[in-house]
Amino acid sequence: MNIVELIERKRDRGSLTADEIQWMIGAYTDGTVADYQMAAMLMAVYLNGIGPAELATWTDAMLHSGSVLDLSRFDGRKVDKHSTGGVGDKVSIPLAPLVAACGVFVPMISGRGLGHTGGTLDKMESIPGFSTALDQTGFERVLEATGFAMAGQTEAVAPADKKMYALRDVTGTVPSIPLISASIMSKKLAEDLDGLVLDVKTGSGAFMTDRSRARELATTMVGIGEAHGTDVVAYLTDMNQPLGDEIGNASEIRESLAVLRGEGPRDLTELVEILGGEMLRLGGQAESVDEGRSAIRRAVADGTGLDAFLQMVEAQGGDPAIADNADLLALAPHRHDVTADRSGLVIQAEARSLGLAAMRLGAGREKTDDIIDPSVGLTMRVNVGDEVRAGDPLVTVWHRNDDTFAEALRLIDAAFEVGDDAPDLRLVYERIE
Amino acid sequence: MNIVELIERKRDRGSLTADEIQWMIGAYTDGTVADYQMAAMLMAVYLNGIGPAELATWTDAMLHSGSVLDLSRFDGRKVDKHSTGGVGDKVSIPLAPLVAACGVFVPMISGRGLGHTGGTLDKMESIPGFSTALDQTGFERVLEATGFAMAGQTEAVAPADKKMYALRDVTGTVPSIPLISASIMSKKLAEDLDGLVLDVKTGSGAFMTDRSRARELATTMVGIGEAHGTDVVAYLTDMNQPLGDEIGNASEIRESLAVLRGEGPRDLTELVEILGGEMLRLGGQAESVDEGRSAIRRAVADGTGLDAFLQMVEAQGGDPAIADNADLLALAPHRHDVTADRSGLVIQAEARSLGLAAMRLGAGREKTDDIIDPSVGLTMRVNVGDEVRAGDPLVTVWHRNDDTFAEALRLIDAAFEVGDDAPDLRLVYERIE
Repeated sequence: MNIVELIERKRDRGSLTADEIQWMIGAYTDGTVADYQMAAMLMAVYLNGIGPAELATWTDAMLHSGSVLDLSRFDGRKVDKHSTGGVGDKVSIPLAPLVAACGVFVPMISGRGLGHTGGTLDKMESIPGFSTALDQTGFERVLEATGFAMAGQTEAVAPADKKMYALRDVTGTVPSIPLISASIMSKKLAEDLDGLVLDVKTGSGAFMTDRSRARELATTMVGIGEAHGTDVVAYLTDMNQPLGDEIGNASEIRESLAVLRGEGPRDLTELVEILGGEMLRLGGQAESVDEGRSAIRRAVADGTGLDAFLQMVEAQGGDPAIADNADLLALAPHRHDVTADRSGLVIQAEARSLGLAAMRLGAGREKTDDIIDPSVGLTMRVNVGDEVRAGDPLVTVWHRNDDTFAEALRLIDAAFEVGDDAPDLRLVYERIE
Repeated sequence: MNIVELIERKRDRGSLTADEIQWMIGAYTDGTVADYQMAAMLMAVYLNGIGPAELATWTDAMLHSGSVLDLSRFDGRKVDKHSTGGVGDKVSIPLAPLVAACGVFVPMISGRGLGHTGGTLDKMESIPGFSTALDQTGFERVLEATGFAMAGQTEAVAPADKKMYALRDVTGTVPSIPLISASIMSKKLAEDLDGLVLDVKTGSGAFMTDRSRARELATTMVGIGEAHGTDVVAYLTDMNQPLGDEIGNASEIRESLAVLRGEGPRDLTELVEILGGEMLRLGGQAESVDEGRSAIRRAVADGTGLDAFLQMVEAQGGDPAIADNADLLALAPHRHDVTADRSGLVIQAEARSLGLAAMRLGAGREKTDDIIDPSVGLTMRVNVGDEVRAGDPLVTVWHRNDDTFAEALRLIDAAFEVGDDAPDLRLVYERIE
């Protein structure tokens, strides 16, 4: 095959056959197709689009460019959840043990934070001793013992995607819905799943700020799942304001423990219940999402979710004493309350700026090789729509009193607005099957 | 500046500033911008286009990426001609000396053949001893002594274009009208010209087969010239059938000498007169194209054009005895006539297939490092519209009787058609100023 012919075809809005796409992804992975050729192809796909069948093959070829889990020996359905990323989004951490406690395996492969968004792996690593670097054997051992596991992707998974993502990052081809969809789905489908719930964020703090683009992303990913024979359900959920109260790393573990005890904030708890209910439905442990939600609530009430979480923590080298000893989770030495300068309604608590503020403090990464400080972060004291009086706290800043503090404060000041008419932000906008 | 931002802007149909384009071309030339980034940019330009002002800056930046001739010490106007390439197109060879003989400097930088198209340099090199590899001093010396010079581009001219063309060739971004225009014009404008005549070929043997695309190319290049302050006139001319009778290298020199003696074929002679008349007008030696044509005819009739040609040949190391001794120009040992299999009108003598046939025989290159055989080629015995009887010769093949001959014959057979209704092919379709 000739890559130039394939580029020309895509440039001219033609279609590639399954054989051509499989050859191309393989040849790119092994270096036969050069970066500059794939860059031209990616820009052509970005601008001209790609058909659903081509995209399914593209995803499949990326998925099979590396190792794929084989969980067929596990007696039960395997269901995972993936979020497109947001601020304060620690849903995975209480969700996975609750679903596992209800009898569905959750082989959860997560990512790290970048920019204003946090990452599950970073948060989990704020648990003393906890390791997210499991090899395949270790991952399956934890999954078998506790019903779920939370680890990072190994180098062996979808190398085509790693290489292509790095190229997209430097060639202006990142925000393409089909390319994003293929990237996400190639990694998730490599987990040998029976079902997948996608939490597609929309709003200022989301990767897709625009709701119609977020819907397109969700629909595209559901389509890829369907073509692959895996049940995928997507939820469009709000990311105009942070999810839950905590934005940080150790603090998000504390908040996750609170959810597992039934003491979490309302929005976070509700989203865990909804997504968990859906996962139980996909996992065959509930007839409906509502029935699944009830099961999740029971796993909170009877403590089985928390037990599962602590078992997994211990299995992955972490200290389960975090449940009883809050001092084991880092907390920055300085706190500062940002307060309302007038009375009224909170009409804005802009997620992206608050995420960037936490990043500046050290809770996130500007570049992929930045080091995370688990102790710093923000604690939201209000949600959009809340009534406040002048002087009431809006957010508490946990910081090290270094030169990042002033910049973080400027970002926080820009994030909040108190006024008279608050927008009606919903937690879930849409369910797409 | 950040190349990713510039790619994203062009991807989103935005405009780049002059500073940004100049920086980008420079950074690409020196390697700061990677091939994969320029590949993405080129595909974005290919698909989204580029504005006239951006394109003029782009061309200017490529032109200034290398050395530029300074011919200001020459007392007279400098005018060149460029053809987009075709089959049997040896116009430059008689044209340049005729224009020079009429008092306009012609600093002619030419190219080599590739695929079905021939190249002026290859043809000139079939003159024993002739060198097209002049450095800048040598080029100016010949130009000063004879009024014109015919050489290849030095490595120092427009290195950005060389690098970019090589990249376009492997990334499916060659047939973009703005990119082609910038590539051609960056090299021609580096010749320090007062005027330029473009011969944009259209038809089966042209790079742009479609006339509306050829017109767009012509208009785009004229616009770049205007922005640069150089008078540019473009002609859309036919390339459905070969130009003149000879397709080869030494044979095209023989035919060029015939034109200089007033004994050339009608179509070739007429195009030399028209383009020469235009060059004289741009060079200030004629009030109108018609007046210029008359001057060109006089330079044929009084032999000053032929004298100028032979002086230039000698100045560049070639043997001027070619004018009197035809044996100095190579001729293949075998000849074969392809004849008409029925009586009627020649309704097709398809230029591209005939060019490919000559290439297969050894007169052209399939790859850039193929070696040219100056002795082989085709001699057209008919033009489209001519009446023939069964058995009349259509074309004479000059060959070495090697294994390329059979394939060339197949291509020739496919090129000709004798029938009842011949199309009305014109020599010149349009003049664009």
